Amino acid sequence: MEFDEVVRRRRMVRTYDPDRPVPPEIIDKLLKHALRAPSAGFSQGWGFLVLQTPEDRDLYWSVTSSGGEADSWLQRMRTAPLIIVAMSNKSVYLDRYAQPDKGWADRAESHWPVPYWDIDTGFAALLMHLTAVNEDLGSLFFGLPPGKIEAFRGAFGVPEQFMPIGVLTVGYQAPDKRSPSLRRGHRPVDEVVHHGRWAATPPAG
Amino acid sequence: MEFDEVVRRRRMVRTYDPDRPVPPEIIDKLLKHALRAPSAGFSQGWGFLVLQTPEDRDLYWSVTSSGGEADSWLQRMRTAPLIIVAMSNKSVYLDRYAQPDKGWADRAESHWPVPYWDIDTGFAALLMHLTAVNEDLGSLFFGLPPGKIEAFRGAFGVPEQFMPIGVLTVGYQAPDKRSPSLRRGHRPVDEVVHHGRWAATPPAG
Repeated sequence: MEFDEVVRRRRMVRTYDPDRPVPPEIIDKLLKHALRAPSAGFSQGWGFLVLQTPEDRDLYWSVTSSGGEADSWLQRMRTAPLIIVAMSNKSVYLDRYAQPDKGWADRAESHWPVPYWDIDTGFAALLMHLTAVNEDLGSLFFGLPPGKIEAFRGAFGVPEQFMPIGVLTVGYQAPDKRSPSLRRGHRPVDEVVHHGRWAATPPAG
Repeated sequence: MEFDEVVRRRRMVRTYDPDRPVPPEIIDKLLKHALRAPSAGFSQGWGFLVLQTPEDRDLYWSVTSSGGEADSWLQRMRTAPLIIVAMSNKSVYLDRYAQPDKGWADRAESHWPVPYWDIDTGFAALLMHLTAVNEDLGSLFFGLPPGKIEAFRGAFGVPEQFMPIGVLTVGYQAPDKRSPSLRRGHRPVDEVVHHGRWAATPPAG
């Protein structure tokens, strides 16, 4: 598919055909593209947990749900045949930038204006999300509740230094409900894009 | 260009043809695609500062450079005809999730396992980076030094609630040097991708 078409079609999908698994070669491609994401200092401080069997997916939903959500979007999400949890590893970045070519031997976090470990792992997640569109699949990127992260790590044997920054459900789209958040509409371009100075108006023409 | 080809060609570019500006319609497309990035609760808590004139670009480099970098990659970066600074606004997310449909009226940051304002703004930056590839342009995503953020805000009139999560330089590529970080190579897939359980081996076949 043309790149512009992928961007145009991209949307978050919350309901899937539960009887149609994601073909293995597409799972491979999703992951291959994730690993092509850029990362600061080529740190690649990330990890991806891939859940395909009904047992593994049930385990994921049971340890991360907070109950009382029977009728919520999370119920529809359980139709997804594939779950990929994207995790960032800050310590890999601190180690990488303590090396001589970077020179932050103190491993201080104050060198980092924002957590590039989370942003880079987000890049990988977005590349998977776009790749799904390109393969005529749908996907949703969403976060884990903070109170469920320890239980998630325990259930799947994830080391403590890995922080799940988000989850991608992937599958063939079934009739879906539009997210009510979208009714809010896009912010006006002039509110978000600034030319030359924050307060300046866009150039004429 | 096909989506797969964009992913394959994507790389960070640090040297540009200084005499070839980015056409206005491509700048519009970069920004249009940035604003199509997904965001938690459709918050769209971001802002983009676009710098095109030599004066504005010089101002950017002068307020953000830390000196002593005359021979560094930053010198080559000054050949870029276009700079877009991507900024996240946490307060927009806290406000959005204090609304009744989300219910975090206390605006507490503890609800957020990771800073989705930074990750979402990163999504927008990656979409611009990929769009540049699709338009036969090159770009680099890089961070501002934490010690220069106040000076940057002051020079361009950026309100304090906007945090520059990174900068995209864009232009037509000139003969470039490969980043030395790339010699480190990709991490082995089995180190990064885990199936079913963290310690599990990939399924056979």
